[in-house]
Amino acid sequence: MTRTIVESRTKTAIIGFDQPFCVIGERINPTGRKKLAAELEAGDFSTVEKDALEQVACGATMLDVNAGVVYNSNPNPNETEPPLMRKLIELVQSLVDVPLCIDSSVPAALEAGLEAAHGRPLLNSVTGEEERLEAILPLVKKYNVPVVAISNDDTGISEDPDVRFNVAKKIVQRAADYGIPAHDIVVDPLVMPIGAMATAGLQVFALVRRLREELGVNTTCGASNISFGLPNRHGINAAFLPMAIASGMTSAIMNPVRPQEMEAVRAANLLMNNDPHGAEWIRHNKPATPEGEAPVGARGGRENRRRRRAS
Amino acid sequence: MTRTIVESRTKTAIIGFDQPFCVIGERINPTGRKKLAAELEAGDFSTVEKDALEQVACGATMLDVNAGVVYNSNPNPNETEPPLMRKLIELVQSLVDVPLCIDSSVPAALEAGLEAAHGRPLLNSVTGEEERLEAILPLVKKYNVPVVAISNDDTGISEDPDVRFNVAKKIVQRAADYGIPAHDIVVDPLVMPIGAMATAGLQVFALVRRLREELGVNTTCGASNISFGLPNRHGINAAFLPMAIASGMTSAIMNPVRPQEMEAVRAANLLMNNDPHGAEWIRHNKPATPEGEAPVGARGGRENRRRRRAS
Repeated sequence: MTRTIVESRTKTAIIGFDQPFCVIGERINPTGRKKLAAELEAGDFSTVEKDALEQVACGATMLDVNAGVVYNSNPNPNETEPPLMRKLIELVQSLVDVPLCIDSSVPAALEAGLEAAHGRPLLNSVTGEEERLEAILPLVKKYNVPVVAISNDDTGISEDPDVRFNVAKKIVQRAADYGIPAHDIVVDPLVMPIGAMATAGLQVFALVRRLREELGVNTTCGASNISFGLPNRHGINAAFLPMAIASGMTSAIMNPVRPQEMEAVRAANLLMNNDPHGAEWIRHNKPATPEGEAPVGARGGRENRRRRRAS
Repeated sequence: MTRTIVESRTKTAIIGFDQPFCVIGERINPTGRKKLAAELEAGDFSTVEKDALEQVACGATMLDVNAGVVYNSNPNPNETEPPLMRKLIELVQSLVDVPLCIDSSVPAALEAGLEAAHGRPLLNSVTGEEERLEAILPLVKKYNVPVVAISNDDTGISEDPDVRFNVAKKIVQRAADYGIPAHDIVVDPLVMPIGAMATAGLQVFALVRRLREELGVNTTCGASNISFGLPNRHGINAAFLPMAIASGMTSAIMNPVRPQEMEAVRAANLLMNNDPHGAEWIRHNKPATPEGEAPVGARGGRENRRRRRAS
């Protein structure tokens, strides 16, 4: 059984075939969020604080932390991202206790995050590009952390799933040369928008199965890409996630604040026999209790509040 | 590509690996519906009429017709079911044009249904029980219809999925002896409640895949069984269906009136590349239009009404 161990100072998250699906909260990411980027440039971290607390409250197993800003005052990410990453990691781990995923395309920002993070964070990411392999794999080895491997290489993102599989295989092999085991590599097979490529779903389901059966690796993806450009994206995402999970996907970088997607993940955990005695399902789906009336077996105010909110 | 052809007088439904998921409406079934059974005994068919029209309006591809009554006036189903089945088939096909699935455990009721049905109905069902094989397969051959094969036999329903697979294989082989091809057999691998058997989901997903890859047959199931006894059953069903579809399931006997499950099926069709250009998804998920205001590109009142209802 492949298990990828990710740790904060006090908590362990296991990504694995026999584990509940690992929900990696995607919200702390200024890429494409101009307002957030401007806030960060102005030293305002209130949105990050809110996103950290809210995502964990909604059930995120892990939080992705991305410092991909483009400041008006300085457009060079090699200068701006490393100190911001350090600041974000320190802030987030002061607020919540879940393990973190350090997400950047700037190697110096990844290293800054690795220096700042407690425990054993997940590094996001390496690709099959030569320059990237040579820059990132030594970091992975030095800090003894697991890493997300995105299946594109110097030729770009192939639309041919066999090419993407082979890129993933190459990364696993190159990692092995550094002494990095396959169970510390979480492959992202790359999810294309179904609106642009009709076979995008079938490709992911087949790739995830092959990655699991042939390479024995855990997998992840940016789940909401699948529905880009289409109406009722949550409806598509909420079917995509269980389908990917049934195919063997073990984690996703996603928005845990969305109830429809999170319900789909919890139901999939139950159906994959990764929710012992259905305890999590039942806890989240208790019958509604009238406001102000104590439910039978209530154990405290916190439990009551959660129950009411869910009803 | 395995294709099972089911026909009414005017419409063809294809169950197949490359087809949209076949939704077989389950509502016309007095088993466990005491009120409906009493109505039928009293000659009141209003609920059947409503169920037929509503299920087709909600998107059922096919309707299951079950005459499993126990009358107070006559507890012998061999006497009561055949005439009732004939009456129900005649009534339903006078109201709607979708193909029908004739559902009974009484062979004489199945034959009465076959005599009354137009086109090429689906017969539901044969099992691996010797007596059943010998009673039903000759009917399947005589009327040249496809048949649902339920994977239990004289020893009952096995909890071991390998045994259920072998029962299905035996039925396919026995059918071949009658000259019935595998593409006219739709196997029901039997869905157990996940609340009673934690591996019920994993069993179905693995069985469906094997049935498809090793026997080349279409599959179906009573989908809502999976959530029996648990809270928020629609949430479980709405994840189970996409997971079963990703595993290769091509039809289910289910309630098409439930929007959460139907949305999950439509999303799964899109993600399996069985919704060309996403046309069905987009049609069902058009942006809301304010009441009374004609949407841009509106083509007529019927389209407008559908749009408003969906919003």
